[in-house]
Amino acid sequence: MKLLEERIINDGRILDGNIVKVDSFLNHQLDIKFLDKLAEEMAVYFKDKKINKILTIEASGIALATVASKHFDDAMVVFCKKQKTLNIGNDVYESKVESYTTKKNYTITVSKRFLSPEDNLLIIDDFLAEGNALKGLIDVSKQAGATISGVSIAIEKGFQDGGKIIRDMGYDLLSLAIIDSIEDGKITFR
Amino acid sequence: MKLLEERIINDGRILDGNIVKVDSFLNHQLDIKFLDKLAEEMAVYFKDKKINKILTIEASGIALATVASKHFDDAMVVFCKKQKTLNIGNDVYESKVESYTTKKNYTITVSKRFLSPEDNLLIIDDFLAEGNALKGLIDVSKQAGATISGVSIAIEKGFQDGGKIIRDMGYDLLSLAIIDSIEDGKITFR
Repeated sequence: MKLLEERIINDGRILDGNIVKVDSFLNHQLDIKFLDKLAEEMAVYFKDKKINKILTIEASGIALATVASKHFDDAMVVFCKKQKTLNIGNDVYESKVESYTTKKNYTITVSKRFLSPEDNLLIIDDFLAEGNALKGLIDVSKQAGATISGVSIAIEKGFQDGGKIIRDMGYDLLSLAIIDSIEDGKITFR
Repeated sequence: MKLLEERIINDGRILDGNIVKVDSFLNHQLDIKFLDKLAEEMAVYFKDKKINKILTIEASGIALATVASKHFDDAMVVFCKKQKTLNIGNDVYESKVESYTTKKNYTITVSKRFLSPEDNLLIIDDFLAEGNALKGLIDVSKQAGATISGVSIAIEKGFQDGGKIIRDMGYDLLSLAIIDSIEDGKITFR
C-alpha cells in the first residue's frame, strides 16, 4: 500500500539492529485518521469473508482493530491480554508467546465467553516479525473452534520468518507494507 | 449517561468484592459502535476546549481514545505504556502507579517526543476507581508542560476516592456513569 510505504519513509526512524520505529503514527502516538485508511484497505480485501469479529492483542493492535470495526459492519473487537489480571477469571484460553522485542516469554489469555465456533475471525495486528504473537492468536482461536477467515497486518518485516510461516500454515495474510530490507538507513519494500 | 447505565445493568456482571465486569463491551470484548456513542458524549461536553491530543494508557483506554479522535478534529492519540520496552528509548517521561486491580506497582512511560507544552490534552480512560492511573497520566502531562483541558472516563466508581481526588485537584472531570453503590447485586448510579 503506497500510502503506508510513504508514511514509513517520511516518518519512520531506523534504529540500530534493523529496527524501524513507527511510533509517531502506528504504535505509541496514533494517527487515527491514517489508521482508518489502512483499515479501509483491509476491508476491501476481506469484504466477502463475512467477518463477524476482529481479534487482536494488546496494546498496539487495539487501535487498528478498533478503526477496522465499522468497515466490517461494526464487528465486535476482542483483544487478547498479555498477562492474567486478577479479575479475568480462570475461564480463559491461553497460549505461550515469545516476544521478539523484549526477549521474554509471556502467556496471552482471552475469555472463553468471547470466542466461539460461531465466530468468523479477522486477526489484526500492527507488526509482523517472527510471527510469535500471531501464532498465539491463531492458537487461542483454534482452541475456541472459531474460523479464521483472514489475517491482516500493517507492517510485515519480510526479512524475518513470520510472514512465510503464517502463509505456509495456509492463512490468507494481507500485509499492507512488506519491508524486504533495511540497509544503510534505506528501506526497500517488496 | 442513560445509555451507558442501561448497558451496565443489562450486560455488566457483578463479582465478589464489589467488582463490576463490563468486559463484554468496554475492556476485553469491545463494542466499537457503542464506544463511539460514549466518545460523542465526551465531545459534546468538551467541544469548546480546543483539544489537539488525547492521552490514555494501555490497554483498555486505547479503544475509547481511538473512537474519540474523530470527534475532536482527528486529534492525535498517545497512549502511555505500562512497562518499558527495549525499543522505547530513554527519552521518556515516567510516573509510578499503583494498580488497584493487580495490587502491583508499575511505571508508566511516554516518549518525550509526543507530549509538549503546545499540547492541549483530553485524558481518557475506561475506569476510575482510586484514580492512580489518572494521577500518573496527569503527572507525565505536567512534566511535559502540556495543558490538561479535561479528563473523561466511561465508568467512575463513586464509592472509591479517585473522582473526588481528581476533582479536588481542579480538573474538569466528566464520568459518563458514576456507580455510587453495589449492594446485593443491585447497582445504584449517582
